Amino acid sequence: MTYRFNSDYTEGCHPAVLEKLVQTNMEQTDGYGLDPYCYEARKLIREAFACPNADVHFLVGGTQTNLTVICAALRPHQAVYGAVPSHINTHEAGAIEHVGHRVLPLPSEDGKLTAGQIRHEWKMYDTDPSREHWAQPKMVYISQPTEIGSMYSKKELQDLYQACKDCGLYLFVDGARLGYVLGAPDNDMTAADLAANCDVFYIGGTKCGLLFGEAVVILNDALKPDFRTIAKQCGSIMAKGRLLGVQFGAIMKDHLYSKICGKGTLQALKIRDALLAKGFKFVTESPTNQQFVIMTPAQFEKLSEEFALSHIAYLEDGNYSVRICTSWATKDEEVDRLIAMINEL
Amino acid sequence: MTYRFNSDYTEGCHPAVLEKLVQTNMEQTDGYGLDPYCYEARKLIREAFACPNADVHFLVGGTQTNLTVICAALRPHQAVYGAVPSHINTHEAGAIEHVGHRVLPLPSEDGKLTAGQIRHEWKMYDTDPSREHWAQPKMVYISQPTEIGSMYSKKELQDLYQACKDCGLYLFVDGARLGYVLGAPDNDMTAADLAANCDVFYIGGTKCGLLFGEAVVILNDALKPDFRTIAKQCGSIMAKGRLLGVQFGAIMKDHLYSKICGKGTLQALKIRDALLAKGFKFVTESPTNQQFVIMTPAQFEKLSEEFALSHIAYLEDGNYSVRICTSWATKDEEVDRLIAMINEL
Amino acid sequence: MTYRFNSDYTEGCHPAVLEKLVQTNMEQTDGYGLDPYCYEARKLIREAFACPNADVHFLVGGTQTNLTVICAALRPHQAVYGAVPSHINTHEAGAIEHVGHRVLPLPSEDGKLTAGQIRHEWKMYDTDPSREHWAQPKMVYISQPTEIGSMYSKKELQDLYQACKDCGLYLFVDGARLGYVLGAPDNDMTAADLAANCDVFYIGGTKCGLLFGEAVVILNDALKPDFRTIAKQCGSIMAKGRLLGVQFGAIMKDHLYSKICGKGTLQALKIRDALLAKGFKFVTESPTNQQFVIMTPAQFEKLSEEFALSHIAYLEDGNYSVRICTSWATKDEEVDRLIAMINEL
Amino acid sequence: MTYRFNSDYTEGCHPAVLEKLVQTNMEQTDGYGLDPYCYEARKLIREAFACPNADVHFLVGGTQTNLTVICAALRPHQAVYGAVPSHINTHEAGAIEHVGHRVLPLPSEDGKLTAGQIRHEWKMYDTDPSREHWAQPKMVYISQPTEIGSMYSKKELQDLYQACKDCGLYLFVDGARLGYVLGAPDNDMTAADLAANCDVFYIGGTKCGLLFGEAVVILNDALKPDFRTIAKQCGSIMAKGRLLGVQFGAIMKDHLYSKICGKGTLQALKIRDALLAKGFKFVTESPTNQQFVIMTPAQFEKLSEEFALSHIAYLEDGNYSVRICTSWATKDEEVDRLIAMINEL
Repeated sequence: MTYRFNSDYTEGCHPAVLEKLVQTNMEQTDGYGLDPYCYEARKLIREAFACPNADVHFLVGGTQTNLTVICAALRPHQAVYGAVPSHINTHEAGAIEHVGHRVLPLPSEDGKLTAGQIRHEWKMYDTDPSREHWAQPKMVYISQPTEIGSMYSKKELQDLYQACKDCGLYLFVDGARLGYVLGAPDNDMTAADLAANCDVFYIGGTKCGLLFGEAVVILNDALKPDFRTIAKQCGSIMAKGRLLGVQFGAIMKDHLYSKICGKGTLQALKIRDALLAKGFKFVTESPTNQQFVIMTPAQFEKLSEEFALSHIAYLEDGNYSVRICTSWATKDEEVDRLIAMINEL
Repeated sequence: MTYRFNSDYTEGCHPAVLEKLVQTNMEQTDGYGLDPYCYEARKLIREAFACPNADVHFLVGGTQTNLTVICAALRPHQAVYGAVPSHINTHEAGAIEHVGHRVLPLPSEDGKLTAGQIRHEWKMYDTDPSREHWAQPKMVYISQPTEIGSMYSKKELQDLYQACKDCGLYLFVDGARLGYVLGAPDNDMTAADLAANCDVFYIGGTKCGLLFGEAVVILNDALKPDFRTIAKQCGSIMAKGRLLGVQFGAIMKDHLYSKICGKGTLQALKIRDALLAKGFKFVTESPTNQQFVIMTPAQFEKLSEEFALSHIAYLEDGNYSVRICTSWATKDEEVDRLIAMINEL
Repeated sequence: MTYRFNSDYTEGCHPAVLEKLVQTNMEQTDGYGLDPYCYEARKLIREAFACPNADVHFLVGGTQTNLTVICAALRPHQAVYGAVPSHINTHEAGAIEHVGHRVLPLPSEDGKLTAGQIRHEWKMYDTDPSREHWAQPKMVYISQPTEIGSMYSKKELQDLYQACKDCGLYLFVDGARLGYVLGAPDNDMTAADLAANCDVFYIGGTKCGLLFGEAVVILNDALKPDFRTIAKQCGSIMAKGRLLGVQFGAIMKDHLYSKICGKGTLQALKIRDALLAKGFKFVTESPTNQQFVIMTPAQFEKLSEEFALSHIAYLEDGNYSVRICTSWATKDEEVDRLIAMINEL
Repeated sequence: MTYRFNSDYTEGCHPAVLEKLVQTNMEQTDGYGLDPYCYEARKLIREAFACPNADVHFLVGGTQTNLTVICAALRPHQAVYGAVPSHINTHEAGAIEHVGHRVLPLPSEDGKLTAGQIRHEWKMYDTDPSREHWAQPKMVYISQPTEIGSMYSKKELQDLYQACKDCGLYLFVDGARLGYVLGAPDNDMTAADLAANCDVFYIGGTKCGLLFGEAVVILNDALKPDFRTIAKQCGSIMAKGRLLGVQFGAIMKDHLYSKICGKGTLQALKIRDALLAKGFKFVTESPTNQQFVIMTPAQFEKLSEEFALSHIAYLEDGNYSVRICTSWATKDEEVDRLIAMINEL
């Protein structure tokens, strides 16, 4: 009997979310997000992130949200900076190019971009004599936490946002796994801090307790007009939009979002500590729910007898980069069983 | 207390679907539609539509499905014929143009396209001396039932498909409300007939008993390669794809799909008959779950005291075109109440 | 020996233009339109059209100019109104859709759009309850003269522009054949009038005395930023941009542009008068260089023995719609020969 | 009086080309490349490159040609490999992304891609477990010569093409400066070799003796259908297409193309040798008409007193990377003057 630590979207949704879906199932509402559940969820989000003037829109999935936000924000010739391992630069099958925009990949060991890096890149562009012949950088895309588990401190985010503003760039924060930061013991960035330090971000639901759903929060007025129509055009609007309102309403209540994800992060940290104690090395330091650890093929195969882990890459020395991923749904006993097995390696 | 007859996506999902979602909620599966529930649902669909070699893909919503299928099928310069009132020509905010393709709207009183019309249009294009300077027609898009409630007979579909084949055009059938045809008393087209007479179609779930979901069925081998990647690129693939497999698995079992939608159609026909008996005129004849009836403003206002109906258009004579829409979820007593009120008008 | 009256791009360029190309051929200049010839031509254009603050850009051809201007002006979900026979709706192979935008075709007997029509269409959109689900009209595209030879009066243009401003729409004037209006005896619209009554227009060179080239004149500040980069991205910028500056410099000097095209228009009117005198009917009234006349097949064949004319369409009564097109290059003796032959029909 | 060595598009066209343009100026022909001059030029090209079954199309400029060819060849999710310094990855303002495709930049010191590199990259993609979520590589884009002056040997090209075929990739060769290779003393690749070892290439005219123009040569039948319509849709087709036929007809006659460009290459090599003799270092070895040399700021400023050179980049040690560019039009006495000045540095 295999237990999955290979991703954070292996189960359905948190029981509190499911309960509310069941409870409201036969109610009748208007469509397209114009129902009372969506309005209520928007209110809860504006409160939780201390952004009373934000526009909040509910979309279905991460790639969809990235392409819709970028499509709505940029003019045709404009491009978006992203770290080399960022989602838009890797696993979106060219979605950003499909809506016409270049992704400008920037090298990053830990998956994060820095203020200095942005200032440098912008200056390179801005002082190039053939500047007019380059795709024009206009947005910085980051993930919090990143695709490889690292997270931005409040200071790093503030610096980055300042750099963006100085260079005339929008800052867009992909929060597909935001809960695992908000609930992380080492996190020093509040929900309000995030909303105060970017132009647009989204609160990931799919990997954080919902069946599906991402809540786009638009802070910058310049990015607000006609977002709903562009989302409709991108195929990103649900007819039964209330399903997203119901779910986000349930998860945003009483800090459920950060509570359940925080528990998920703690599970990952327990596993990390066990690995560290056994002398394992990591691809990067991760204080969140995804751990990228280096294993020998034999170690990977041994653990795979009982657990599904993600084999991410072959390393040059013959070892594997392996992702171990927990979530809000991860069971204590399975964490214990995995740790026991690690200790026996 | 208002009851809604204004659309067929006002409730959640059929109890059998919800039950299976609840039952499977905490199971762990692989993502992106590679789970056992999706495989099982694909099998059921291939059986129900008698198309053992079809590729079946699960997407989320209708506009999304239309743009993904069209995007995957056409080369850049190719265009798609659709009736003037068709969804791609009206309520998709320019989604087809967004993926680069022209919609060629053809006039249609009843929402349907005919074989003769297609042959004529194609010939006009094909014999034009400046043919090379026109967007090239390559696909015919129809909806079964149409956006205004009419439906194709088996013969009409066969003729249309023959015309498409003769002209080198793909035939794509939007089945967002397919259940309301399959369960309609006047329908003479089986599920197998549909699959035998087009290149690609989809089985609508959102309006037919699911929370959400559309199952794309690709018959023509030329349209199969890399569909999953293009869907990913369009943001149309769910991480928790199994939610679609679970739902379609539940609804395709024991003909539940056509049974519950057939009931929905019958409700609409009861209302239609009451309206006809009172002498009301209709915008077009509809044997399915949407009725487009002509009312005076006073009649519309009177019914609106107790029911939500859709005011679709102002007619030139001052009257309204009004949509009355039933669904699998419509309650008998509300139909009776509406009919009673109609009789009192 | 056949003489061509089938289009206005059958010859190369006016001798004065050619002379200047020859004269400057071995000079060295900077590329991409940053040379003295382009600066000089921009100055001449700003003077001739009395628009000292306009941005002027030189592109190569008409379809290219249409797609570049529309691409630069619109956000993804925005659409452009054009008359059914307009170039963007017919002979551009879906170029506007290729850059993501819907063309909203409006019926027009004479190829022109009216202020009333725009106000009506906008109101239909603006008051539609499902407005958010439609492509959003944001621009009106007209051609002066139109594709079928008609032209806007000053009053018609003023009214149309006022309607556009009232509805929040940009007005874009395609002047591919502008010279044939500016030099037309019935024209009451000056160059300055044009520039004062739209947001962006272009001065057609290809059909008006140049080898090739269209000069985009942007009046509205909102449409100016980054136009060069978007044009580069669309492949519309010539490396040897000075070829365009040299040509436009030559043709804008001493009113050569309107003089030579005016002559072309007069040639067409002479032919028109001969046809009228013989009792021929026209598809629409044209005071410019293109005449669309209705002929029997026999008449068409007879004239085709000596002249190339454009057979545009088969009419329902079996007759042909035939285009007779003159240009700055049309020879007097050939016009006389054609008229003589018409008189003998 | 400054003489320009800063690019190869500073003058107009070769006298033989100009003469033919002048000679044919007032002739009447059909438009859009369907005239006798285009047919004749196509014939000459098929002969010169020994590809009797190739389709030949005439477009205007380089960026335009790249975007049109790539747009016509790829399905939406497909991507194109290019060297980091390649034109599509740098100076096209995001043109490839604008038509929806990702450029996959591969590192390259000398501007070239190797067979081994392509095989390795393809394998990485092909064996990735999440392959379906990546943009799909389908084309390799190279420039011959490269943007930094290097050139492929016959063997290198053959190996690369074999690798492409083995991996199911198209090979597209940008020949914007092809003449400077065909006429280079170190070149071992004939025109026929090129046509035998790729799927599509183009013969650059703009930088090689024409006013403007690029001739696309399509070898692979899969890339032929509807190219004209897609080019029209991209705004890449000239109304007066014969201008391209006339020019290519003149330049392809009697090997004029490689003769005049060969002379240009020799001029560059003389300058290179003078620089080498003085101990200058180069960014990369170039046997063609562009030399990228490393200079101190003082050296650059000194030469700039009499010559326009291109300052390409600031190097980390404070020196400059400087491009010195010759062409078919470069004058012997100016080369001598530049060499004299180099010798005095």
